Amino acid sequence: MKYEIREEILSLNMYKAGKPISEVKRELGLEEVIKLASNENPLGCSPKAKEAIIKTLEEPQMYPDASNYELKHAIAAKLNVKPEEVFLGTGSDSLIRIICNTLLNPGDECIMGQVTFPRYEAGAKLMGAKAISIPMKNNALDIEKMVGAITDKTKIIWFCNPNNPTGTIFTKEEFEKILDKIPEHVIIIMDEAYIEYVTDKDFPDALNYFNKYPNMIVLRTFSKAYGLASLRCGYGIAHEELVGYFNRVIGPFDVNLFAQRAATAAVKDQEFLNKVYEENKAGKEYLYGEFEKLGLPYEKTNANFIMVDTKTDDKEVFDKLLKQGLIIRPGYLLGMPGWMRVTIGTMEQNKKFIEALKNSLQ
Amino acid sequence: MKYEIREEILSLNMYKAGKPISEVKRELGLEEVIKLASNENPLGCSPKAKEAIIKTLEEPQMYPDASNYELKHAIAAKLNVKPEEVFLGTGSDSLIRIICNTLLNPGDECIMGQVTFPRYEAGAKLMGAKAISIPMKNNALDIEKMVGAITDKTKIIWFCNPNNPTGTIFTKEEFEKILDKIPEHVIIIMDEAYIEYVTDKDFPDALNYFNKYPNMIVLRTFSKAYGLASLRCGYGIAHEELVGYFNRVIGPFDVNLFAQRAATAAVKDQEFLNKVYEENKAGKEYLYGEFEKLGLPYEKTNANFIMVDTKTDDKEVFDKLLKQGLIIRPGYLLGMPGWMRVTIGTMEQNKKFIEALKNSLQ
Repeated sequence: MKYEIREEILSLNMYKAGKPISEVKRELGLEEVIKLASNENPLGCSPKAKEAIIKTLEEPQMYPDASNYELKHAIAAKLNVKPEEVFLGTGSDSLIRIICNTLLNPGDECIMGQVTFPRYEAGAKLMGAKAISIPMKNNALDIEKMVGAITDKTKIIWFCNPNNPTGTIFTKEEFEKILDKIPEHVIIIMDEAYIEYVTDKDFPDALNYFNKYPNMIVLRTFSKAYGLASLRCGYGIAHEELVGYFNRVIGPFDVNLFAQRAATAAVKDQEFLNKVYEENKAGKEYLYGEFEKLGLPYEKTNANFIMVDTKTDDKEVFDKLLKQGLIIRPGYLLGMPGWMRVTIGTMEQNKKFIEALKNSLQ
Repeated sequence: MKYEIREEILSLNMYKAGKPISEVKRELGLEEVIKLASNENPLGCSPKAKEAIIKTLEEPQMYPDASNYELKHAIAAKLNVKPEEVFLGTGSDSLIRIICNTLLNPGDECIMGQVTFPRYEAGAKLMGAKAISIPMKNNALDIEKMVGAITDKTKIIWFCNPNNPTGTIFTKEEFEKILDKIPEHVIIIMDEAYIEYVTDKDFPDALNYFNKYPNMIVLRTFSKAYGLASLRCGYGIAHEELVGYFNRVIGPFDVNLFAQRAATAAVKDQEFLNKVYEENKAGKEYLYGEFEKLGLPYEKTNANFIMVDTKTDDKEVFDKLLKQGLIIRPGYLLGMPGWMRVTIGTMEQNKKFIEALKNSLQ
């Protein structure tokens, strides 16, 4: 039979996720597999989050709190915003969908970098809107050109800072130069999924600008530095009126109860985040040094991953690493053929990766 | 500032969820609160699901498996369908949204009962489609009238069986009488969220019809009899081509890793489901008897809740019960003022409810 499907759906591509460890083990018959493909935190999560999960096991049958009371208050207290300015979803993925669902009509335009998080484009297409991709400048977002591309039809401009998958940032100075050039009818989205890893002092924390720009939304997540990707929880900060609209689109029980409890505990554990920051910084310095010895150019990163130029066919490098039980993300899937994105692991994992990489490049 | 929001969003209402226990305790200063409002399984979940959750605590930082390999295979094996015919979401809520996102254009029509699960209407409105509500017949879905309302514009017909919130079913005979009258361009959705509780031998298990009707989709969930509402996981069975379209809309990591693992274990634990069935049946018989003693009419149920006529103002009964630490769902929120929906609890909870109800009706 012939199904009548919305036209917008027919033009959507499936998201190609990094291979899960279980699948690689199954396919290649390997015993040990290290996944440095999805920017997962090798230190896991806060022990306080684990305690909260174990406690929740007493009532697995209960629905989550539809108002997300505790978690919204915990986030608001930490970030010094109002609980009414916080909205929640099942990871940044779903926040992006919610925003697109709420704002985009067919024919609207969304501006984004050419090499950035692919879900911005998917969200636009889902709603029949146009994704306008602006070429990168030295592998970083060209935010001036992005702002220059704004038209009357532009509804959203997506700034991923640090940018996934390049790890690059734009600075306070660069940001302040363009901010006032963005008209009010354009929603400015600051995707700061990796902010906890930022080492550059010139990085502009979007929350410092949020109060001045009612058209600004800040997105963050528990999936990266908090180490809770398994549970799916991302959060956004937006002005109260906008949050009210988003809440009509967000399912009442989208964020699961385990995620609510674990994230509420995790928000308060700054000690764990500090440890994550230090470990990542050390891993980054180590990998920089090794890439330099190997003569491989890389982008300085402010996240927990590094984009490296393999100087050869990245698909081949990917395959060779995979056979040694190492999963990375090949650049051809990210719009940067020849490069690869590797997550910074524990020091032990980083060393195994460098060994395997040396074998792969020979 | 004036935000430009999609018109469809402006007409959406927020879902009013049952109050969570923590909120009631907070508001009323109560120590013990029994929630019989959201059809949660008082027996919790399978011990095997709990084991799976504890094991997953070893890797909270990992993303879920985007292909849902294990869970799809486990469901397919149990139901004797193909893994490619299974799709997953964060509860029935999200399955409904996914279906509407995939199929509905502005102006399309969806047919549903007047007193049924409210998310069908929300899903239609979200896409600018029309929700056509057909009056009930003796508090049950009038499936003949529903089919009679089909037009060229009809895209979906929603059959909730057993129907939430009335607990009523339509039988095999009634179903078979109307099935061939539904034209192929209409997607038939069989929402069987409560199927595990069905006691009536004349109930038509939709999977017995699925192979004959390529326009049929069956929805089920882990939130009810499986006792895993906290983790948010629902599943649908649809024809392979349709599942392919849904998978473009479903976020790659919508179902969280804890849910994947817990549900995979739960599917295989028939013993737990049998216990749930028996306990619910006993509670139902007890409550029937008590309602009869109190002279309160009720609908015979095939689910884990009962719709009862309070013979007075249901809002008042709700308030009086609440003050005694009992949360039920008042009928005025469900389109049946004067009635209330009460979840069948443990025998101890049922008895406390009846005591409190007697106090409330005096």
